[in-house]
Amino acid sequence: MELWFTENHTPNVRFGVKIKEHLISTESDFQKIDIFDTYEFGKMLTIDGLIMVTEKDEFVYHEMIVHVPMASNPNIKRVLVVGGGDGGTVRELTRYPHIEQIDMVEIDQKVVEVCQTFIPQTASKLKDTRVTLYFEDGIQFIKKMDQAYDLIIIDSTDPIGPGEGLFTESFYKDCYAALTEEGIMINQNESPYYEKERRELVRANKKIKNVFPIVSIYQFFMTTYPSGHWLFGFNSKSINPLNNNIDLWNQQGIQTKYYNTDLHKGSFMLPNYVKEMIRDDE
Amino acid sequence: MELWFTENHTPNVRFGVKIKEHLISTESDFQKIDIFDTYEFGKMLTIDGLIMVTEKDEFVYHEMIVHVPMASNPNIKRVLVVGGGDGGTVRELTRYPHIEQIDMVEIDQKVVEVCQTFIPQTASKLKDTRVTLYFEDGIQFIKKMDQAYDLIIIDSTDPIGPGEGLFTESFYKDCYAALTEEGIMINQNESPYYEKERRELVRANKKIKNVFPIVSIYQFFMTTYPSGHWLFGFNSKSINPLNNNIDLWNQQGIQTKYYNTDLHKGSFMLPNYVKEMIRDDE
Repeated sequence: MELWFTENHTPNVRFGVKIKEHLISTESDFQKIDIFDTYEFGKMLTIDGLIMVTEKDEFVYHEMIVHVPMASNPNIKRVLVVGGGDGGTVRELTRYPHIEQIDMVEIDQKVVEVCQTFIPQTASKLKDTRVTLYFEDGIQFIKKMDQAYDLIIIDSTDPIGPGEGLFTESFYKDCYAALTEEGIMINQNESPYYEKERRELVRANKKIKNVFPIVSIYQFFMTTYPSGHWLFGFNSKSINPLNNNIDLWNQQGIQTKYYNTDLHKGSFMLPNYVKEMIRDDE
Repeated sequence: MELWFTENHTPNVRFGVKIKEHLISTESDFQKIDIFDTYEFGKMLTIDGLIMVTEKDEFVYHEMIVHVPMASNPNIKRVLVVGGGDGGTVRELTRYPHIEQIDMVEIDQKVVEVCQTFIPQTASKLKDTRVTLYFEDGIQFIKKMDQAYDLIIIDSTDPIGPGEGLFTESFYKDCYAALTEEGIMINQNESPYYEKERRELVRANKKIKNVFPIVSIYQFFMTTYPSGHWLFGFNSKSINPLNNNIDLWNQQGIQTKYYNTDLHKGSFMLPNYVKEMIRDDE
């Protein structure tokens, strides 16, 4: 018997993954959560039928969402992760001894529990003493905060279902207020290639430009996401993502599989068709 | 009725494309050639069941294979394309008025004919007066040449079937001899992500290092190829791909959808795991 998981990247494009074992299938108050063991990608988390995390390539996503802002400002001490239930973003953050506080607000406790059981590769550092987990709605959580964080990472699903409110201008405004003067907000910014993700990329970018003075986008290779071409937004009050501090990151001796400070700079060099999508006059 | 084309990216990963119409299926002396009209990617050429070119994203591949070397040396006048039967590489080359001679040696005339009929988007410039087509084996063709070209572009299929000889050290040596003192050789260099392409990437890179003094690799997003993370090799006798001439390219006023001179530089900034694969001591 052959078992294949299939994700429709568009109505006309399919991505299929051969399954060793369907480890768990459960439903939370918010979404459907499945974990598979796969031949090519190791353990794989899907939410509502979409691939979120695989053991083979989660390092790309998690290194790029964390080390780019961390190298851009060597003084980050207090961090908030919104979403990120698999724990991979927190894992990368815990590698910095100078980070004092990591808050993670994840609406769906079940995602965290399932990943702690089945994907310790990403979830194992959620028990670090600097980490506090809040199982509540990030939109409400952030409203209470005033200049509380040096870095906010929006490690969200797509803007459907529980992730939708994390793509609104009022949420971005609340993030701005919750950041210190040197604050940086990183957001999961979708993809330029297929129409659905492109639309969300353009919409999110426009909204964020209404809120933050410095708004940039950087790219990385993410094979298990639609098109393999994925983007994060780098948004800040005052810090430029290509400043002269970047190379200081190398003094910290953090070993990475994807990130390095040259690639950091290169990842902000976007193809023309992507630059046109996010041009200010459109 | 629904018709789907499926390519196995690995034995355990499938990529599926919904088909509007199967326009032609034919067999040459060398390989099986099919052209499909697809909903997502427009016209699509497959060879032996593998996607070679789609109208939606061929610009990425062809701009990156041509404009990176052309910006690295503004004095390129004589160019040889090995393979490239779809015509997209020649199309990009014809945009430079200062190129005097474009030879293309393609072993399979049928690929060219089929693309001229069904994919004029890539094939239409093969009739440029500076272009000469040679329908013969590139391996034999190159042996006759001595310092004849400023740029050789190996626009090959994978190293199986007729493309295999284009991945040998003796072929790379013949390319070296066929290049002028400022000569550059660009090679289709596979992908770092899945095992099969990674093996070929590492092997080709090792062989080329035995022949050329300057050997670099650059990357680009190619959704319709396995993993979406694809590489070209930039190999030369004396020209560095990150030299001070790059920005002069902008004075030529060539409009591009993917390439720009910042992205040129960024594309050489590789992830650590890729850099490790091609480290000299392995």
